[in-house]
Amino acid sequence: MLLLIGLGVGDARDISLRGLEAARKADKVYVELYTSKFSSSVEEIAEIIGREVEVLSRSDLEENCWKIVEEARDRDVAVLIPGDPMVATTHVILRLEARKRGVESRVIHSSSVVSAVCGATGLQVYRFGKVATVSWTKSRAPIDVLKANESIDAHTLLLLDVDMSVSDAVEILVETDGSLAEKFAVGVARIGWEPVLACDRLAKLTGYEFGDLPHCIVVLAPTLHIVEYEYLSAFANAPKELEVLVR
Amino acid sequence: MLLLIGLGVGDARDISLRGLEAARKADKVYVELYTSKFSSSVEEIAEIIGREVEVLSRSDLEENCWKIVEEARDRDVAVLIPGDPMVATTHVILRLEARKRGVESRVIHSSSVVSAVCGATGLQVYRFGKVATVSWTKSRAPIDVLKANESIDAHTLLLLDVDMSVSDAVEILVETDGSLAEKFAVGVARIGWEPVLACDRLAKLTGYEFGDLPHCIVVLAPTLHIVEYEYLSAFANAPKELEVLVR
Repeated sequence: MLLLIGLGVGDARDISLRGLEAARKADKVYVELYTSKFSSSVEEIAEIIGREVEVLSRSDLEENCWKIVEEARDRDVAVLIPGDPMVATTHVILRLEARKRGVESRVIHSSSVVSAVCGATGLQVYRFGKVATVSWTKSRAPIDVLKANESIDAHTLLLLDVDMSVSDAVEILVETDGSLAEKFAVGVARIGWEPVLACDRLAKLTGYEFGDLPHCIVVLAPTLHIVEYEYLSAFANAPKELEVLVR
Repeated sequence: MLLLIGLGVGDARDISLRGLEAARKADKVYVELYTSKFSSSVEEIAEIIGREVEVLSRSDLEENCWKIVEEARDRDVAVLIPGDPMVATTHVILRLEARKRGVESRVIHSSSVVSAVCGATGLQVYRFGKVATVSWTKSRAPIDVLKANESIDAHTLLLLDVDMSVSDAVEILVETDGSLAEKFAVGVARIGWEPVLACDRLAKLTGYEFGDLPHCIVVLAPTLHIVEYEYLSAFANAPKELEVLVR
């Protein structure tokens, strides 16, 4: 059986008890660290699992993924994945390949930035629209998503490309579309155990020190719920002028 | 310190290693089981934590939440919460109350249906719009969200009220707006370890046996990515006619 096991949103201690037990019992344990930035090293992951852990390259998991699938035909093979597995298309394709070859597979979930961002920012899960990614290759794609979400009064979670900080992302976004500079947003670093966050107009977020990666940004919807406003004031030092959004 | 610890999406073994260690070390452990349906009993949770666990009522966590906050002033008090904490407004208000009273608080994340639904259905996280809830009190609210999401070509995750099955929800939705009957949707039961899912036109989902709760529904966006279609065909027995949505 092929087991896709989430490592969770912070570091390797965010793995679930179910995931930990499954990894410890598996015949072979791999880890995939290229689809997202992760705070634990392979050594730290191996120490927590109590097992040797082999790192997969992109090609192991993409064009050559049939090899892992075949390895899982008669043995339990675990693939550890930062966050919640299957959020990346790569993992979906891996499970499809397993199904095509008649090899059983299972997913063991863990925490993901997609829901944890609510805990970090106090913003309501019901108020988020589509997620988008800001990449080093400048593109209007995240801005189109942001405008679509605005049209339905939704917040936008912007995930950032590997090694990209809040400041880097803000520069790319504002250079692509100057009208974004004045929008209210929240910069968040290291969602997980001790997140650092700041709420201000997007262009002003470059003035904050967020510290180590990973970072992400939430661009706020055109309106806010009063509890969202209170939370951002209490925990993200939101400016008083944010109050104009409260409905 | 007040610790809000997620129990995760399936049962108590979905708690994170970090959450488990924190709960074991806390001076007092509570559990909140009324904001969502959870597959583990209090006894099972207590056994996994290895500690006595006291159940909180709605009033303990709402109008009287100051009592827990005060208890956490000089001791470590853990509140275990199904899924990922802070997804419910109740938990956000609890943290705000702690901040107002100068009591430290932390969140320990776990898996949530909001991201796990991607793993179960193979649908891409980037393609989901706002989440909505179908409640026993008939309302157009979830339908309005669904139409808003459609306007930006997004999938809609519908969470169901306590004790509501896919069939119950479909009946309520279709009675409220008959035009929904023909939309393609995915019914999902017990997201977590062994999900059961079926993809068909919404009205036809009443003909499937999903088994034990909790259930949820994803109403599909007006278009599908080819990998989404392939996954639903392989794992959710999607009808061939779904192919018309692929762009």
